[in-house]
Amino acid sequence: MTQRRDRADVSTYVSGLVARAREGDARSVARLISLVEDASPLLREVSAGLVGHAGNAQVVGLTGSPGVGKSTSTAALVTALRAAGHRVGVLAVDPSSPFSGGALLGDRVRMQEHATDPGVYIRSMATRGHLGGLSWATPQAVRVLDAAGCDVVIVETVGVGQSEIDIAGQADTTLVLLAPGMGDGIQVAKAGILEVGDGYVVNKADRDGADQVVRDLRSMLALAGHAPTAWKPPIVKTVASKADGLDQVVELIEQHRDWLAGSGELERRRLRRARDEIEIIAVTALRERFGDLSGHAGLDRLAAEVLAGQTDPYRAADTVLETV
Amino acid sequence: MTQRRDRADVSTYVSGLVARAREGDARSVARLISLVEDASPLLREVSAGLVGHAGNAQVVGLTGSPGVGKSTSTAALVTALRAAGHRVGVLAVDPSSPFSGGALLGDRVRMQEHATDPGVYIRSMATRGHLGGLSWATPQAVRVLDAAGCDVVIVETVGVGQSEIDIAGQADTTLVLLAPGMGDGIQVAKAGILEVGDGYVVNKADRDGADQVVRDLRSMLALAGHAPTAWKPPIVKTVASKADGLDQVVELIEQHRDWLAGSGELERRRLRRARDEIEIIAVTALRERFGDLSGHAGLDRLAAEVLAGQTDPYRAADTVLETV
Repeated sequence: MTQRRDRADVSTYVSGLVARAREGDARSVARLISLVEDASPLLREVSAGLVGHAGNAQVVGLTGSPGVGKSTSTAALVTALRAAGHRVGVLAVDPSSPFSGGALLGDRVRMQEHATDPGVYIRSMATRGHLGGLSWATPQAVRVLDAAGCDVVIVETVGVGQSEIDIAGQADTTLVLLAPGMGDGIQVAKAGILEVGDGYVVNKADRDGADQVVRDLRSMLALAGHAPTAWKPPIVKTVASKADGLDQVVELIEQHRDWLAGSGELERRRLRRARDEIEIIAVTALRERFGDLSGHAGLDRLAAEVLAGQTDPYRAADTVLETV
Repeated sequence: MTQRRDRADVSTYVSGLVARAREGDARSVARLISLVEDASPLLREVSAGLVGHAGNAQVVGLTGSPGVGKSTSTAALVTALRAAGHRVGVLAVDPSSPFSGGALLGDRVRMQEHATDPGVYIRSMATRGHLGGLSWATPQAVRVLDAAGCDVVIVETVGVGQSEIDIAGQADTTLVLLAPGMGDGIQVAKAGILEVGDGYVVNKADRDGADQVVRDLRSMLALAGHAPTAWKPPIVKTVASKADGLDQVVELIEQHRDWLAGSGELERRRLRRARDEIEIIAVTALRERFGDLSGHAGLDRLAAEVLAGQTDPYRAADTVLETV
């Protein structure tokens, strides 16, 4: 009885937060994101509470190697999007730092300019060593910002290893940031980048080598090949520190949204994403049971037995499956 | 009764193959690898039959972007390893082709030089669209070659996307191949390469730019940083087409094996690998049940419901888990 009462209280609390977030209350938005980020027991309530209140926001993934000017670009892009009348959410997903986001002081100051703007929500999220780098909480945090009325949600990730591909899986529109002088255009060829970009932003375009990066990129995109009817990823040059070229990035984002909607690709990408999300939640739940098992030294013991030539991996897997 | 009889026959058949493979019968080796590659119903029998007969071979992963000369290097490395008295197995894991391995005719001819050498087994494996590129059959195929007496098993993979990291997870020793003239040292910075290499081989070292690749690599490795007691990945220059420098690669492999054994890292890597292998077999079995569900339009229907704002991903995942 008490438990049922608690449950009802919790639902009321969460739906209150959602209602206030939808009216634009920044503290409720922050509270909801904290709940999903902490994977608190209320996570499921938040997820349920957001049903029907999300789906409008265009999720823009912004990725690139360290040093290309991601934080500066994000800040400048927010300004440009605001000027074009958008309400903007930013999730800075940082693999290492829980809050500072690895941003230089100047970037944080630039971001702070937006702190008093009620049309902008900015939030750093830690990844807590999540495999591949993207926080599992990101999709739910995006929904919170979406429900709060943001029509563009930027998810900024450091492009390391697998995360460009991850963000492409979670975004409607993926922008890859590049810059000259990063080791001879090395970052252009980083695994997967050519497959995931819906647009490429060559930042620091006032520096030597920017045109070379554009040329390298163009020829690599040509080599990679795209179906003739598909979206052709534009290349935009910016100098984010001087707020140069960001209007074109806004235009790119808006055009891509139109294309996504018109081509049916938006629906396809979102269906795939929802499918992936359900699957990962289910698989995570299953893997937690594996985790419990390995807490029992189950997996480790079985691995040692395989190594010692006492059993084989298939029989060991049977044992695992019997236990869960 | 019949089934039990069949089962006994199957065991006898497989253990016969294993026994003949251990005596060096190339046809039995080939048959066993086919059984694991086809995921035949006998796969489990083969896995069980190999228990206690594997664990001696040093698994050397050889990876690199297309065009660096992987096939040529593999062929030249096999010659050098044979000259140093090793028995060598080669698994060429190719993401696209079921057999030709994308190798040029000249490489295949070079490989064929080894075809009559009883101390060498060479096998191409298709990946059948396996996520990430590395065939799930690889660990079992390695065990077959190991049981057949190979003390070095080379697993050659095309370095695309995730596969360098995959191979590092499956190898005792990971060698990353590079070459000059591949787009300004671009491949040096490919995601993950700096973390996975136990050694770097700069092939085509007689060409312009080879020293630059070595310098780029050296400074990037210095930047990446390694614990002072850990293995410091050497950089070796080769001209595989002229069989130049391969002795140093053999030396690198032998030194790394000594280091692995002496430092306890061999045991650690293999335990992790056995653990991963058990887990992936178990997770694959579980995911097959998801597959069945989605065949029922289960996952797709649930994803559409999430998108339509009729449910949330956590409740959808519950439904998935109830069904499996």
